[in-house]
Amino acid sequence: MLLRIFIGSTDKVDHKVLCESIVFKAKEAGLKGATVLKGILGFGASSVIHSYKFWEVTEKVPTLIEIVDDEEKILSFYETIRPTLELMQYGCLVTTERLNVLLYKSGQKRMFDS
Amino acid sequence: MLLRIFIGSTDKVDHKVLCESIVFKAKEAGLKGATVLKGILGFGASSVIHSYKFWEVTEKVPTLIEIVDDEEKILSFYETIRPTLELMQYGCLVTTERLNVLLYKSGQKRMFDS
Amino acid sequence: MLLRIFIGSTDKVDHKVLCESIVFKAKEAGLKGATVLKGILGFGASSVIHSYKFWEVTEKVPTLIEIVDDEEKILSFYETIRPTLELMQYGCLVTTERLNVLLYKSGQKRMFDS
Repeated sequence: MLLRIFIGSTDKVDHKVLCESIVFKAKEAGLKGATVLKGILGFGASSVIHSYKFWEVTEKVPTLIEIVDDEEKILSFYETIRPTLELMQYGCLVTTERLNVLLYKSGQKRMFDS
Repeated sequence: MLLRIFIGSTDKVDHKVLCESIVFKAKEAGLKGATVLKGILGFGASSVIHSYKFWEVTEKVPTLIEIVDDEEKILSFYETIRPTLELMQYGCLVTTERLNVLLYKSGQKRMFDS
Repeated sequence: MLLRIFIGSTDKVDHKVLCESIVFKAKEAGLKGATVLKGILGFGASSVIHSYKFWEVTEKVPTLIEIVDDEEKILSFYETIRPTLELMQYGCLVTTERLNVLLYKSGQKRMFDS
């Protein structure tokens, strides 16, 4: 199952960047992997597009966290982060999709951190 | 339902950048949210890979627009942008996927535009 | 069908950057298109998060290759790159998803390479 969490890049919780916090928790929870993709443009649940302002280069851009693992692990992980997401003052969107895993291979080296 | 539109970052329609135009229309149509992701590499429907040139840093990169909403709204929105996409001189790819929404939360602040 | 390959941006095979190599092979195999998205953060199969180091700006970030085509073509293409992925010393994740193609349009110009 694929878990996708759409948040803002500057959203914070307890003074920590939310997307980093979620990736750390995913790691702690022993999930297979997580990838954070940064968007260049977008709007969310309650966004209002203001002229010009919307296209200005700001630090706030949509951010997408993708986590792949078994359904049970994904849903159990989601329950641990749900209170945080629900209490935030920011909007967010969380979706799941079913997929097939063709290959999941552990590397001899660490993969995404050097 | 998840709508995904693969276009080029420099594709334009009526002198406007296509991906911005689509995001604006999605906002006008009252869709839940849109996220634009910029790729670093790729090829599309009619692209020919030329030696070196392909890897050069150009402004044209693949761009992916993701929009999540109910099937009915998505398909209705797609019909409004389809003529534009079909008339363009550029290639594009539009796909839909079914997904489950675990959480859709409005923020007290605007989400992706500061 | 959507094929997604999660690898590291610096993973190499035969002294070539893996993600470029895969995109070239996808082009050679006549697939409809490929898009490479670069992540900003993440961890994979065997990654260990080290304090600080994980958040340092390094060249190694998660990279996601997305390829859309018919199931038969996708699986046949996957078989051609599977030995490479399996022999690598790096971890990776390969998934497939079913999707509907609403529009696949060839451009009069090349799409992603200028």
